[in-house]
Amino acid sequence: MKDTKKRVIIERVIPQIDGGRFPAKRVLEETVKIEADIIADGHDHLAADLLYRKGGESEWRTMPMLLLVNDLWRAEFVLNTLGLYEFTVRAWIDRFDTWRSGLLKKYEAGQNVSVEMVEGAQLLAQAAQDAAERDRMLLQEKIEILENDDLPMLNRMEAALDGELSGAMRKYPDGFSLVEYDRVLQIRVEPQNALFSTWYEMFPRSAADEPGRHGNFKDCIERLPYIAEMGFDILYLPPIHPIGKTFRKGPNNTAAAGPDDPGSPWAIGGEEGGHKAIHPELGTLEDFRDLLHQARNLGIEIALDIAFQCSPDHPYVKEHPEWFKQRPDGTIQYAENPPKKYQDIYPFDFESEAEPALKEELLSVFRYWIDQGVKVFRVDNPHTKPLRFWEWLIGKVKEEFPETIFLAEAFTRPKTMYRLAKGGFTQSYTYFTWRNLKWEIEQYLTELTRDPVQDFFWPNFWPNTPDILPEFLQMSGRPGFVLRLILAGTLSSSYGIYGPAFELGVNAPRASNTEEYLDSEKYQITQWDLNAPQTIRPMIKRINRIRKENPALQQTRNLMFHPVDREEILCFSKYTDDMSNIILVAANLDPHHTQSAWVKLPPEIIGKTAGNQHQPFQMHELIGDARYLWHSEQNYIELNPQVMPAQIFRVRRRVRSENDFDYFM
Amino acid sequence: MKDTKKRVIIERVIPQIDGGRFPAKRVLEETVKIEADIIADGHDHLAADLLYRKGGESEWRTMPMLLLVNDLWRAEFVLNTLGLYEFTVRAWIDRFDTWRSGLLKKYEAGQNVSVEMVEGAQLLAQAAQDAAERDRMLLQEKIEILENDDLPMLNRMEAALDGELSGAMRKYPDGFSLVEYDRVLQIRVEPQNALFSTWYEMFPRSAADEPGRHGNFKDCIERLPYIAEMGFDILYLPPIHPIGKTFRKGPNNTAAAGPDDPGSPWAIGGEEGGHKAIHPELGTLEDFRDLLHQARNLGIEIALDIAFQCSPDHPYVKEHPEWFKQRPDGTIQYAENPPKKYQDIYPFDFESEAEPALKEELLSVFRYWIDQGVKVFRVDNPHTKPLRFWEWLIGKVKEEFPETIFLAEAFTRPKTMYRLAKGGFTQSYTYFTWRNLKWEIEQYLTELTRDPVQDFFWPNFWPNTPDILPEFLQMSGRPGFVLRLILAGTLSSSYGIYGPAFELGVNAPRASNTEEYLDSEKYQITQWDLNAPQTIRPMIKRINRIRKENPALQQTRNLMFHPVDREEILCFSKYTDDMSNIILVAANLDPHHTQSAWVKLPPEIIGKTAGNQHQPFQMHELIGDARYLWHSEQNYIELNPQVMPAQIFRVRRRVRSENDFDYFM
Repeated sequence: MKDTKKRVIIERVIPQIDGGRFPAKRVLEETVKIEADIIADGHDHLAADLLYRKGGESEWRTMPMLLLVNDLWRAEFVLNTLGLYEFTVRAWIDRFDTWRSGLLKKYEAGQNVSVEMVEGAQLLAQAAQDAAERDRMLLQEKIEILENDDLPMLNRMEAALDGELSGAMRKYPDGFSLVEYDRVLQIRVEPQNALFSTWYEMFPRSAADEPGRHGNFKDCIERLPYIAEMGFDILYLPPIHPIGKTFRKGPNNTAAAGPDDPGSPWAIGGEEGGHKAIHPELGTLEDFRDLLHQARNLGIEIALDIAFQCSPDHPYVKEHPEWFKQRPDGTIQYAENPPKKYQDIYPFDFESEAEPALKEELLSVFRYWIDQGVKVFRVDNPHTKPLRFWEWLIGKVKEEFPETIFLAEAFTRPKTMYRLAKGGFTQSYTYFTWRNLKWEIEQYLTELTRDPVQDFFWPNFWPNTPDILPEFLQMSGRPGFVLRLILAGTLSSSYGIYGPAFELGVNAPRASNTEEYLDSEKYQITQWDLNAPQTIRPMIKRINRIRKENPALQQTRNLMFHPVDREEILCFSKYTDDMSNIILVAANLDPHHTQSAWVKLPPEIIGKTAGNQHQPFQMHELIGDARYLWHSEQNYIELNPQVMPAQIFRVRRRVRSENDFDYFM
Repeated sequence: MKDTKKRVIIERVIPQIDGGRFPAKRVLEETVKIEADIIADGHDHLAADLLYRKGGESEWRTMPMLLLVNDLWRAEFVLNTLGLYEFTVRAWIDRFDTWRSGLLKKYEAGQNVSVEMVEGAQLLAQAAQDAAERDRMLLQEKIEILENDDLPMLNRMEAALDGELSGAMRKYPDGFSLVEYDRVLQIRVEPQNALFSTWYEMFPRSAADEPGRHGNFKDCIERLPYIAEMGFDILYLPPIHPIGKTFRKGPNNTAAAGPDDPGSPWAIGGEEGGHKAIHPELGTLEDFRDLLHQARNLGIEIALDIAFQCSPDHPYVKEHPEWFKQRPDGTIQYAENPPKKYQDIYPFDFESEAEPALKEELLSVFRYWIDQGVKVFRVDNPHTKPLRFWEWLIGKVKEEFPETIFLAEAFTRPKTMYRLAKGGFTQSYTYFTWRNLKWEIEQYLTELTRDPVQDFFWPNFWPNTPDILPEFLQMSGRPGFVLRLILAGTLSSSYGIYGPAFELGVNAPRASNTEEYLDSEKYQITQWDLNAPQTIRPMIKRINRIRKENPALQQTRNLMFHPVDREEILCFSKYTDDMSNIILVAANLDPHHTQSAWVKLPPEIIGKTAGNQHQPFQMHELIGDARYLWHSEQNYIELNPQVMPAQIFRVRRRVRSENDFDYFM
């Protein structure tokens, strides 16, 4: 834009990620706010439109932007279709409004405005050239009044200030000064469970009720009510494909498996097939589709684990040796992290000449499972495959199936995790698993919820996974499990647990210096006693119900921390845009001792609820369903971890009127 | 970059402003740090080069970037030429280094590495294809050793790990994986006084020694030693052009001037000429050039005020009526801010059809004065002319004269001020003039010194101007003037005062509710008594000398505030990159009362000076030339504003050795 006559400048249009290189994420039915800085020289009034359209539309829709403050303009609209939207901004000098405002000031100061009337008429005549018939007639009528020296000035002023006239003039931007922002930006509209979801991970082969039997999809169907009753809406299964035999791992990740050892589900592919096949002991494709169907009836989506790697027995190895790296000795390169060797795993060679065919095949894996009805995928170790490959693949899938969800299982360096999310992954694993102290939780969550991170990176918090039994859980007993559950489920709108190990409080590591589970399900079948007395199943059910009933907990970017003068107590709040739902959480991070503190309520909450800080209001504690009256900003909290390590308050307005004097709305 | 086989990602290359739309600013001889986030999938080692060139060069220079931490890479180089530099980044998978590192780990773990030797030889052979003769021979020699099964493995390992080999291999990037950042970014190298300058503003017509006589350039020459002695290096003169008579303003901005009233220098143009002419009473063009010459001999540059507006008597009005807006009644549109009228000023119409000729003419105004030897311009109200016009004009001037400096006199809304700076203005007026409390100084300066603001917006702090006698100065007496001087001169590397009003402590406003000076020099000639007893000239001289002697004060982005448990006391430090110069300032912002506090020294300073916090070190107070021993982090400060409202400490290392046991270096 080198035309020096163009006086309007449009800057910092948001949401915007890396100069528009990636779309910003939002969810279906969300109202998206588009903002821009718009300036020009001098005092002229400006006007601006948001231009937006859905993917595939060629025409822009326009919507006027409003000036808020400090040259910041905003427009908002509801995203009612999945997939990509495009938007940009245009702005111009609003000569009519500038003229109208100056005219009024001059007239009120008693100045002669007859020349201004002629100038105004010229502006109207200019607009009339492009105007629709109806507007043109209005403009013509006003022009005649403005130009008529014989009329009293009061009448001409009335005509000039007429609201209908302003409305008509706003429709015809001044083409001379109009500029468009130099980029078209994108928003990707995700399904609502992309932002708010509650995951349960489970090994199907451990789902059998009879000891020693290999569990299958029918057992999973039996297990569904158990999972639904706890309030989970995504059931995530480790890979369901045939498992390789060559270099199969035995219990506790030992090098050599016995003949009956089932192997790791992530060693994918055997003579029965590869990524599009089902491990025979789990059942048939029809069984799987039945599981999908039965789960959906209970409000549960099945998430498949897609791990793009092969056991040496995978059919690809014979059929497409060109997809793997050949070593000079003719062998295929296995995975390694020198000096460690993972001989049971062959990684794909994404730099091979056959990469175009390879990536089409991998895309077809997703298409295959989507055709069976799967919408949610947990992608294993995406950071060990090229980042641009994922961007391509997810883009392709989402073009056809915008309702799909991709969770990136990448516990890797921060910038790589962010880039995976920018490139299309819907949700991401995080470092929450290892964040236990107040300062580190506050620091990490502040990073995750700041702009523009929340525009592309949506966390999914896991207190445990089959690979990770964090030291905190090893050492903190039942209070630790309850605490981590509450933190995961209230800090992040998406979270998940690996069960039944989690609800049963399994906390034994393979060795004292490791985070691996003892007798991990990754390498053997486990018999679970779901009704063991130590289960925290009722607690999980409670937290998930609180999440469902409180929209404030169904997003993550609204998180705010509040100061508490005790390092062991974490305090934060979340509320909905309209403040109709306000949640305040206080958690004792010390699983061993009772801790107490004075919690200072944030002024935003006080202002929006009690109205002023001297008026008492009600705090509804949702875990124990207790109600408290809080009378001032400062309130005493005492949390005994053996009883309950945290409190989740819903802040309720205090209402006082003749009609409902002792109710709280 | 849609090639999914390209595994390397380059992000966030900085300095970068608005996606590369504007160059980042640096000064001559500065070492610029270029940083980038560079990642790829998996564990492969990466390598990266910075590519850079000076304006006009077609070939890139390359410089290896180093990995610092967290996937952040950096390279730095010295900017030894004024004008534009371009830079970008390229990165690739360093297959040799990946192989070398894996080889070593496997060898140390006792694994057989004979296949690895063949793989290494293949990498060397690949590089040898592009290698220069000398390198090719080295590679060939190493290939033979690597491939030689008859040699002991130890010898082959030695060949593989050879440092000379690594050096040679680093020269030949792997073309298959190489990616370039998708943008070329720019740096504008400014002269050193763009960043570090000390301005003195003065009305030449008030420079005469005899009462009643109109001062002139010869008087200015007489005044030069006075200015130089105080330590100023830029003498800024309000417009020196003929002044219009039509609607000329009288003393104190009254509507009608008497026949002897000189008028405002900003009402530019009369029958004697316009923007390229000199007001006859100031002298001739030769006098002006003499002033330039004599000033430069004293290390002072003359800054001209360029105000692009015309009095009704300006020759342009008759010669180029098409450059002004004609009203329907045939008159020319004067400046207005309804209902206020400024009938003595005609703004240019930058939207006129004749704008191309108008802007060329305005460019020629700068060229004209540059031809006379002027290098520094203070531009009046740039925010009332199109922002893209300035970008074009400054770009044109800087192409030919990269040593020029443009100071934007824009006291307008923040985003407009920033945009003027991005578009080319070297320095900018700021809101410092009205920032008096600790929180507002800290907040404002934190904004000005954060990234990327310091890459484009270089503040020039003015405690007063002919237009602004801030209320703080009206009410705070001599301590207030000294305080504002110290703050301006230490917070910002560029600052200026409007004198002699400032050094003489002139503090009478035209009325109690205004910031205008009583009997302002803008509308009348003032007789100054430079030797009046109240002058703070010695103080100014002292501060300017401290600035000259301490490189830490010659930049602004290095500012850091430190907590002090008293609202009236502000504490901040600045140090050079190499920590050879460390300045700590403590200022009492209350001009009326003595204030005291415990100042906590920042750990960075303690760490770099005394070595540990229990070792005493010396604080050299530079205003009073006193030395103190501080023994711990916490130190007591007491500031009586009547004596001295601030202290400027140079932190000196404590050195202890036999040779110089009682010296401080």
